[in-house]
Amino acid sequence: MTPDEFRTHGKALIDWIADYYEQIEQYPVLSQVAPGAVRAALPGAPPEQGEPFAALMADVERIILPGITHWQSPNFFAYFPANTSFPSILGELLSAGLGVQGMLWQTSPAVTELETHVLDWLVEMLGLPERFLSSGAGGGVIQDTASSAVLAAMLAARERTADRGPQTTDSRQPTKDGALAAVGGRRSQTSGPSAVGNDPRLRAYTSTQAHSSVAKAAGIAGVGRDNLRAVGVDEKFAMRPDELRRLIEADRAAGLRPFFVVASVGTTSSTAIDPLPEIGAICREFGLWLHVDAALAGTAALCPEFRHIHDGLELADSYAFNPHKWMFTNFDCNCFWVADRAALINALSILPDYLRNAATEAGAVIDYRDWHVQLGRRFRALKLWFVIRSFGVEGLRARVREHVRLAQLFAGWVAADPRFELAAPAPLNLVCFRLRQGGDAANRALLERLNASGKLYLTHTVLDGRYTLRLSIGGTLTEERHVRAAWEEMTNDE
Amino acid sequence: MTPDEFRTHGKALIDWIADYYEQIEQYPVLSQVAPGAVRAALPGAPPEQGEPFAALMADVERIILPGITHWQSPNFFAYFPANTSFPSILGELLSAGLGVQGMLWQTSPAVTELETHVLDWLVEMLGLPERFLSSGAGGGVIQDTASSAVLAAMLAARERTADRGPQTTDSRQPTKDGALAAVGGRRSQTSGPSAVGNDPRLRAYTSTQAHSSVAKAAGIAGVGRDNLRAVGVDEKFAMRPDELRRLIEADRAAGLRPFFVVASVGTTSSTAIDPLPEIGAICREFGLWLHVDAALAGTAALCPEFRHIHDGLELADSYAFNPHKWMFTNFDCNCFWVADRAALINALSILPDYLRNAATEAGAVIDYRDWHVQLGRRFRALKLWFVIRSFGVEGLRARVREHVRLAQLFAGWVAADPRFELAAPAPLNLVCFRLRQGGDAANRALLERLNASGKLYLTHTVLDGRYTLRLSIGGTLTEERHVRAAWEEMTNDE
Repeated sequence: MTPDEFRTHGKALIDWIADYYEQIEQYPVLSQVAPGAVRAALPGAPPEQGEPFAALMADVERIILPGITHWQSPNFFAYFPANTSFPSILGELLSAGLGVQGMLWQTSPAVTELETHVLDWLVEMLGLPERFLSSGAGGGVIQDTASSAVLAAMLAARERTADRGPQTTDSRQPTKDGALAAVGGRRSQTSGPSAVGNDPRLRAYTSTQAHSSVAKAAGIAGVGRDNLRAVGVDEKFAMRPDELRRLIEADRAAGLRPFFVVASVGTTSSTAIDPLPEIGAICREFGLWLHVDAALAGTAALCPEFRHIHDGLELADSYAFNPHKWMFTNFDCNCFWVADRAALINALSILPDYLRNAATEAGAVIDYRDWHVQLGRRFRALKLWFVIRSFGVEGLRARVREHVRLAQLFAGWVAADPRFELAAPAPLNLVCFRLRQGGDAANRALLERLNASGKLYLTHTVLDGRYTLRLSIGGTLTEERHVRAAWEEMTNDE
Repeated sequence: MTPDEFRTHGKALIDWIADYYEQIEQYPVLSQVAPGAVRAALPGAPPEQGEPFAALMADVERIILPGITHWQSPNFFAYFPANTSFPSILGELLSAGLGVQGMLWQTSPAVTELETHVLDWLVEMLGLPERFLSSGAGGGVIQDTASSAVLAAMLAARERTADRGPQTTDSRQPTKDGALAAVGGRRSQTSGPSAVGNDPRLRAYTSTQAHSSVAKAAGIAGVGRDNLRAVGVDEKFAMRPDELRRLIEADRAAGLRPFFVVASVGTTSSTAIDPLPEIGAICREFGLWLHVDAALAGTAALCPEFRHIHDGLELADSYAFNPHKWMFTNFDCNCFWVADRAALINALSILPDYLRNAATEAGAVIDYRDWHVQLGRRFRALKLWFVIRSFGVEGLRARVREHVRLAQLFAGWVAADPRFELAAPAPLNLVCFRLRQGGDAANRALLERLNASGKLYLTHTVLDGRYTLRLSIGGTLTEERHVRAAWEEMTNDE
């Protein structure tokens, strides 16, 4: 494809995308294809000769589009949103166009410095504690997802715990023979778990309502999913600090090593908000790393009136939220901060010869490869910068407020209708509700009817053992008329 | 931004990108900015009000562009390439435009099915073993990077090892109190390390020349970097199978549990190719999982004449290569296959209630969230599909052949010049070389002079303890004239 052909096809694709958004309400929100249907329409063998771009786009319309569940539809109320916006799409386009890889500061200084800068901006925008600013001992980085952020936090916590106290070594063998002098270019700098392996006495804690990524991270890190304790919750589905304390004290009494707590600001099932002041105080008392996962809800803190969700966050060691959920920035974009970047870097840094360079050796720069699992990294700060500058902070706030207003409006309708009940508090933009009559079967039938209609898409959870519908409002294009239509569709025939 | 404004700005951005590629040789390849210069040009506070798109693009030109190291320049010879192409940029644009998130089959069936399909195509295109096809027990998935692929392989290997034999449990405590009934929705299905934590006797193996990501993965997984054995290499920098066997046997004799070997097809320092037939036979004999990392070199197998690099791959349990390095697909895009997907899924699957759905429960579909660290995922198959269809397999082969031809041409010039010497064999598109006189200081000075000129960018490694220059040829736009100019610049003044 020549530059001139790129100009032609690229402009046609820009129009295609604009058309898509203008027509998006025409499509069934949840894809209606059967398993295997997309593959069945694709040729069995790759083409030997190149094909014209028009042939690709024809197949996009014929084969791909029916297999799309339209996350950007204003009638998408499932899971949590993964909203995007035109400025974000253009930021992603520019990132792809520049085609740079920012593993080291040197491999494109703007990738690193814009990222640090925008993450510092966000500390101000969300009113986060100053200890997360890069000017001190902390700092922020873009991870792909909240799953990677909680894993990174757990690894940093594990490393810091090892630095603070003796390791159990009775079950380990000396490793002198064939020890790792050359792999990775130098020996690891610590004697912590990243170097010598896990202490099997490590124990982590999160609530029964926490996201599955916490257990997944415990599995990946070799801590073990079963060594992640499930802390009970209160009637609002928020973690009970007394229960957390009881579990930690029992584990300590048994000779185990509590090291890590994940608190949720906005759980996935019901946006429950764990009490950070009490949890943070317990973590300080026992020397545990506190990670706060605010993947969806964090964005609400753009608005001063919702900033209370972060009360107590000054006691946290790390924090993450997803602009790719509710801040109009396309997936993937998780923002992750640590108060002490040294622990994170100790856990993840390896510097082979082929990555050595003057800027890194001088210590004058950040090399973000040491802040996450991956070595290479895309220029993701660009889309975030485009979004913040295009909307302005006031513009972002206005849209977040409107989403919360719509959710509260919907919650009011549910509460006022004798056929329905609210299943949990709705502090922000998610409403959990169910039919009072007919039990799980009736609620499941309602969900299936709604999704099969193609007019909207919502998903369920289980709260107090009962099947519960979730209406999650965060689409960039969602307006009151869409929420009103959803309610009408639900109450139709009921 | 309205759809009409998006049309206007988007088309201007398409032109900007086309212009960028037409002018790319004007920029210094390695960014010349000093640390902090990009940040210093950015305002300290985010804007309260939205700004026009023109203001953003003006800052891209004024602030961002000087901080870019131009990976797509035809004079970029550093590290390994991260090449891209116009069809790939358009694939990324379409993916951003659709804005879907493919964590489950249901959340956009086309995301999953196109990915499975294209990964099956690639098995054919590269002549990979049929056991990696999705029609059997195996299958492929797109990971972000080779670092994540080797981590996933290590986790699957760890899980399979646990399933095969008894765990050491003497240092573990029972976990009944607060055991994980609710976090993640259900208890883990295995009693392997993902559930109960690592066996501290686990030992892994890779060559002294392997990529740093292997040690990083051992650290992350809690195996411990020091429990990754560094296997010695031969005069071609390829792993010595006799040395591998000796280390495994010594570890077994010491009561340890060898479980995982990473072989490299094309090491980062010198594209050394480990002998897979011998290594694979040892892995089979001792029941170790063999992962093959062909991040850069794998692409060469598009050409039958280079397919010998994969001899013995039928003995591997997993394999990865990066289309984002040498196959014209923009970063990030790593293709990862396993012969037995059950081990991988066992290590990573968690199904909370809020992700349950009929398609998943029926077992009729793939949910790729169980194949990697992250839960959410972008529609990355789109750009790969666009690249394969736009170039055609013949078109891809032609460009790969040309890159190899250029590297061999350059290697010939080095070999024929008495001032220089080749530092390692150059089997594909990377040439390692150095000045014969003046030692490391002279070679470092040469590298610094070349990079400071802005005319080209190359990086170094250390081989046999000596500072070595690397010329890596894989840019989409790199032609013979660029390689010739690089050689002239090197031999100028020498």
